[in-house]
Amino acid sequence: MTKLASWIQTKLHELNVTDTMDVPEGFTRLSFSKEEAEAHNHFQKVAKELGLFTYQDGVGNQWAVWEVDKEVPTIAIGSHLDTDPCGGGYDGVAGVLCALGAIKNLKDSQYQPAKNIAVICFVSEESARFGISTIGSKAITGMLNKAEMSFVTDIDGVTIKEAMEEYGLIWEEIDQPELPVDKLESFVELHIEQGMQIEKNNADIGVVNGVSCPVRLKISVYGMANHTGTTPMNQRRDAFVAITPLVNFISDEAIKINKSSSHSLVATVSTINLKPNSMNVIPGEVELGVDIRSVDDEIKRRFADTIREYCNCIEDKNDVSIEIKTLVDNDSVILDIDVQQKLIQASNENGYYTYTMDSGAGHDVMNMAKKWPSGLIFIPCKDGISHQPGEFTSIRNLEKGINTLTKYLQINAEK
Amino acid sequence: MTKLASWIQTKLHELNVTDTMDVPEGFTRLSFSKEEAEAHNHFQKVAKELGLFTYQDGVGNQWAVWEVDKEVPTIAIGSHLDTDPCGGGYDGVAGVLCALGAIKNLKDSQYQPAKNIAVICFVSEESARFGISTIGSKAITGMLNKAEMSFVTDIDGVTIKEAMEEYGLIWEEIDQPELPVDKLESFVELHIEQGMQIEKNNADIGVVNGVSCPVRLKISVYGMANHTGTTPMNQRRDAFVAITPLVNFISDEAIKINKSSSHSLVATVSTINLKPNSMNVIPGEVELGVDIRSVDDEIKRRFADTIREYCNCIEDKNDVSIEIKTLVDNDSVILDIDVQQKLIQASNENGYYTYTMDSGAGHDVMNMAKKWPSGLIFIPCKDGISHQPGEFTSIRNLEKGINTLTKYLQINAEK
Repeated sequence: MTKLASWIQTKLHELNVTDTMDVPEGFTRLSFSKEEAEAHNHFQKVAKELGLFTYQDGVGNQWAVWEVDKEVPTIAIGSHLDTDPCGGGYDGVAGVLCALGAIKNLKDSQYQPAKNIAVICFVSEESARFGISTIGSKAITGMLNKAEMSFVTDIDGVTIKEAMEEYGLIWEEIDQPELPVDKLESFVELHIEQGMQIEKNNADIGVVNGVSCPVRLKISVYGMANHTGTTPMNQRRDAFVAITPLVNFISDEAIKINKSSSHSLVATVSTINLKPNSMNVIPGEVELGVDIRSVDDEIKRRFADTIREYCNCIEDKNDVSIEIKTLVDNDSVILDIDVQQKLIQASNENGYYTYTMDSGAGHDVMNMAKKWPSGLIFIPCKDGISHQPGEFTSIRNLEKGINTLTKYLQINAEK
Repeated sequence: MTKLASWIQTKLHELNVTDTMDVPEGFTRLSFSKEEAEAHNHFQKVAKELGLFTYQDGVGNQWAVWEVDKEVPTIAIGSHLDTDPCGGGYDGVAGVLCALGAIKNLKDSQYQPAKNIAVICFVSEESARFGISTIGSKAITGMLNKAEMSFVTDIDGVTIKEAMEEYGLIWEEIDQPELPVDKLESFVELHIEQGMQIEKNNADIGVVNGVSCPVRLKISVYGMANHTGTTPMNQRRDAFVAITPLVNFISDEAIKINKSSSHSLVATVSTINLKPNSMNVIPGEVELGVDIRSVDDEIKRRFADTIREYCNCIEDKNDVSIEIKTLVDNDSVILDIDVQQKLIQASNENGYYTYTMDSGAGHDVMNMAKKWPSGLIFIPCKDGISHQPGEFTSIRNLEKGINTLTKYLQINAEK
């Protein structure tokens, strides 16, 4: 094992607050939880070991800065440390670890950058707890919608304000971290691919062109709750029976579209809330969460319309009413060409085979790209598995990520 | 309004711990909750007003006794006060209220019974919180399975032992209320019908012959969780997509069986637990709860087998594995003929039109009937609606219930 590989192994454990990556139940570091705070403390510790100056901003992002001169521009790299419930130890961690690893490489080789370098560890990237994603990067780019956020609670009824205050933040100041454009020159995130395109194309590193943003729908179905034992089959208004054909319709239609369209589309019914969810009561209400993605914004939106039409048919055929709310509908993001070129150059100069691709998943870089020239590097992960305990990427892949980021910083921070 | 009607109105509010029955969110008095305890306190208060001797047994049942002589037999009547989440204010309450109302009638008319009369307010009849129903009557009849119970938790992870101790009970003593056969002579429960048979047959009172017990299945489906944005449609093992056709299959098949069979059958997928239930993760695991009922035990069990076969087909067609666990499978209960006759006589002598019927819902009387001659009276409820805030029965129906129980006690407690 090289010295760098051994450092990666150790710091991968530290950032995951664990002694081993072999954790069958996975990692659970939800937004603004004490587990996220603990991982952030480890980030500070590792950054300080590398001689970086660290601080937390008003929304909870961790910053680790290699400041060479107040007057020169700052280039930023980074990712996040929070996870989904029972998630993997690489989604987010890989990007933070590789950013710190690149700093280590530069410091070890006595490199003197001509620009300041900032490593950002974004707070609360995942949407699992509050249904809102990328809170840290939204705050930096001025995209935080506090009015909208104030209505949101987690599954236990804790409001996001309560959670952030418990985390030690001041609600009135959470939008203060917004940075003027001239504070950063550019931003690059590294992430595990969470798909299999790099592997299928026998590549080492993926450089991303477009990031698809989801359309997300909340579909509420209202029938009538009643006793399961005493309500005859022909007198029921079972909301669950009425809406379930939609689950297969969405899957079947998405498969069809992929056969006929040049851009791929994925669509998932990923959440359900059934009321009262009680063994002896007919489901009176069902709420489904639908996630639709494509880099092609038009086919993504047309698909949402198809779902709306199908729900109209369900209403016509069944004695239920259906409400559809669009939770999210943003345009896809095309990343900066110049940054892409530099990333491809950095990967190639390391001797890695580089694959240019789109991303089906959203990341903090989506927000950063709206304000600063930004780029996204993927490293492969085993079988494309992510957001569950089986998520894995090798130390060798992390090393390639670090080397690519190192070279990118050198290209970018030359005198 | 008659004096009795006005008493019913007042006591209906007291037992529901409310100032009005017009509560849009319904009533929530879960098993061993402080809300159930509060309703039990009101039961004690009303029973004491009627001059009854009250006490709580070791599992939390409330007893209110009109003791005339230690040497004569005791006849018991009663029901429960706990509810489903957001349930109605009559399921259970009607039976407790009518039992107390019958005592009031007898006392008001200076009646002197020749037997002791006990009103039982059973604890924790509903299964909503812990998935276990009729805990109070199980304890009295010696059917409590403490070993099985000790593994059970509610949705917040509270064990039933913790909940019962919080309720003030002693876990080691919860099976002590078991009564020897000679302690009671008979038991009768009154309940709202939760169906529409009484109304459809233009009757006032239903007297029940058979009570159907459910077969309940827990169906666990294992696919693979993965990122919704990066996993192509043709590389998914979505557990939710795989299992949803079962929901419609169960409904469609049950409708078919009712067309061809002499006994009716109802079947419902009433609960779902989807993992991780997160917007950006493909469902990796789904757990469905299925409730199947018929007084004909054979068609009920044959239907469960049909579901098992269908799940085998789903496994064959999809890359998922399915486990099916039978949670409950008890024989239907046929109630005592002699008690039935007395109830019919009591109803007829009041001038009410009496309808003999089966019950699709289970009640505490199912357990009591295994040890003592037992009977079940139904009063109609509006549109058959139950287990939700819209549940309703009129003061007039409650009055008819009280008069029927009064006459039954007189027939039974004659010198």
